[in-house]
Amino acid sequence: MLVNNKNYRTVWMQDNFVYLINQQLLPHKFEIYKSSNHLETADAIKTMIVRGAPAIGATGAFGMAQAALEFTGKDFENFKIHLRKAEQVLKSTRPTANDLSFGIDFVMRKTLDNFDADIAKKYSVGAANEYADWNADLCKSIGEHGNKLIGENHSILTHCNAGALACVDFGTALSPIRVAHYSKKNIFVYVDETRPRNQGASLTAWELSQENINHSIIADNAAGFFMKLGKIDIVIVGADRIAMNGDVANKIGTYEKAVLAKENNIPFYVAAPLSTFDINSKTGSDIPIEERHEDEILYMHGMDESGEVKKFRISPRESSAKNPAFDVTPAKYITGIITEKGVIKPITEEIERFVKNE
Amino acid sequence: MLVNNKNYRTVWMQDNFVYLINQQLLPHKFEIYKSSNHLETADAIKTMIVRGAPAIGATGAFGMAQAALEFTGKDFENFKIHLRKAEQVLKSTRPTANDLSFGIDFVMRKTLDNFDADIAKKYSVGAANEYADWNADLCKSIGEHGNKLIGENHSILTHCNAGALACVDFGTALSPIRVAHYSKKNIFVYVDETRPRNQGASLTAWELSQENINHSIIADNAAGFFMKLGKIDIVIVGADRIAMNGDVANKIGTYEKAVLAKENNIPFYVAAPLSTFDINSKTGSDIPIEERHEDEILYMHGMDESGEVKKFRISPRESSAKNPAFDVTPAKYITGIITEKGVIKPITEEIERFVKNE
Repeated sequence: MLVNNKNYRTVWMQDNFVYLINQQLLPHKFEIYKSSNHLETADAIKTMIVRGAPAIGATGAFGMAQAALEFTGKDFENFKIHLRKAEQVLKSTRPTANDLSFGIDFVMRKTLDNFDADIAKKYSVGAANEYADWNADLCKSIGEHGNKLIGENHSILTHCNAGALACVDFGTALSPIRVAHYSKKNIFVYVDETRPRNQGASLTAWELSQENINHSIIADNAAGFFMKLGKIDIVIVGADRIAMNGDVANKIGTYEKAVLAKENNIPFYVAAPLSTFDINSKTGSDIPIEERHEDEILYMHGMDESGEVKKFRISPRESSAKNPAFDVTPAKYITGIITEKGVIKPITEEIERFVKNE
Repeated sequence: MLVNNKNYRTVWMQDNFVYLINQQLLPHKFEIYKSSNHLETADAIKTMIVRGAPAIGATGAFGMAQAALEFTGKDFENFKIHLRKAEQVLKSTRPTANDLSFGIDFVMRKTLDNFDADIAKKYSVGAANEYADWNADLCKSIGEHGNKLIGENHSILTHCNAGALACVDFGTALSPIRVAHYSKKNIFVYVDETRPRNQGASLTAWELSQENINHSIIADNAAGFFMKLGKIDIVIVGADRIAMNGDVANKIGTYEKAVLAKENNIPFYVAAPLSTFDINSKTGSDIPIEERHEDEILYMHGMDESGEVKKFRISPRESSAKNPAFDVTPAKYITGIITEKGVIKPITEEIERFVKNE
């Protein structure tokens, strides 16, 4: 992704250091967080310096490589014990993130498939880089498939941040938008601000600004208004988990936009890698919905005039809030799912065919 | 309405002063704003110290009375010219608000139905008070009619603030909720926070807190989620203007909630006085939609830890926003319109019968 006209990834490794775009400070300040060891990397995941399932997965992978490099002995059994400890620390940072385990396990497997600690260390760094490259490549493929759905002069609505920042590069929902822009299509993006955590207004708008892609932030309430006016040609969102019948769990509000898109005959696409399909979830009702702390509704974060980023109360002290973090959009509202292998119809037979061929 | 267990109205007049509950400071601080002349009152409308169509109507009426009192001459023709100027200033503050014209015209008619400026001044103050009392009474009637639609243990969703603060007292959408609570029904209110100005999270939640009515604030994105879960029995919202075919202009996001209510078979009611019907708007497409400043999206107001209410940026400096303040909900999504004369079906014949009998 472009930041200040330079190419960046969300996370990368150089020597013993893991570098992360500090997402806690965005969109107000662009800073690279430098982690010196796997414990600092674990902390960066925990404190949400990095967020987004694929980005967390890659960060976990790099954290494991760091842990391998930190080992100073020669004995392979001790090396294994050291790695298992690090694995536990890294995996416990965000226990529900499936991609985190996936990234860590990938590096562990390639590292332990050795018998010499010094050689294994090199393999661990190679494996972490391979994992990150693999993620960036599949996001790029999602972009190329999704780009075919975006026409000249199209306006696209997106919800939350399914961008490069949530992945290693390109993003999922934002990848087709990036590729359309790189291929010189004239496009415009309506960015749902995405309360309560405002990932749209803060992260998606920031990514689009940096790439010089025309966009406007809108209140989540205004998406239906612009749809009804005929201003939106296509909706593209990400996904946190997809059931085998095509029901999609994603950021709260996705269901609302999907119903409104259908009502206004606007195609509604979900962009996600095949790894997002959960073979254990037959339908959306099998997907647990996380309820997050009410403070995300009652307070907000923003930068005051002095340039300080602070927490502000935006509700009466006496009021409480309910804060479901995700909702499930039934497959009937979804036009298609854009994956790295192509666009899938949200029907069980087709999904099974794609997921099993993976 | 109850505030700190005392009865208040949103706006009232004493001597030459118009007093307003300062809604810019709520829910953090309860303060009364004192306006010395009609220009300050116009400014209070423009800067949204007072908001909500009926409250603006009453404030406009009191502003006209102030303008009348400000006239120092004796010549009735000059008095008329003076009033016409004030009328223009007051009417131009909020172009979408039908009630504003209604309140101002009411006072103008009663004031100009004289031939002596000194007598006319007294009539103007009397007319403004009459207008405010009339509004409070009809809101109470809306509450009584609407209460019949609310059952024991019902959960009600409301959007924005169509509360006592938006009127002179009782409110429109909140009036049935108040009356249900006063009649000891066990009810629960889901309060849409209503971005961008957060009138739900700040004003509606504050009013409900003050009256001790059970409620939770939710992100606008979560309304559909709770509807789909079967948690919401009825939706009641206000209206800024209603076309003669039953199309309703109201706060941005109303259209979204109406579509979602219909999709989930939940009755969707609009609570509004008959004065909200605009005989010049045959359908919703005749209603102009106000586009407000993008800063309402890009910034927010909140109270920091020191107790200071501040403006803070929540979006990238490079990003812009689009901010339609209202949307139009087509009549087909609306179950009924709760007026002071009873509940009306949103069909032209019935609306015409009610409006003409007024």
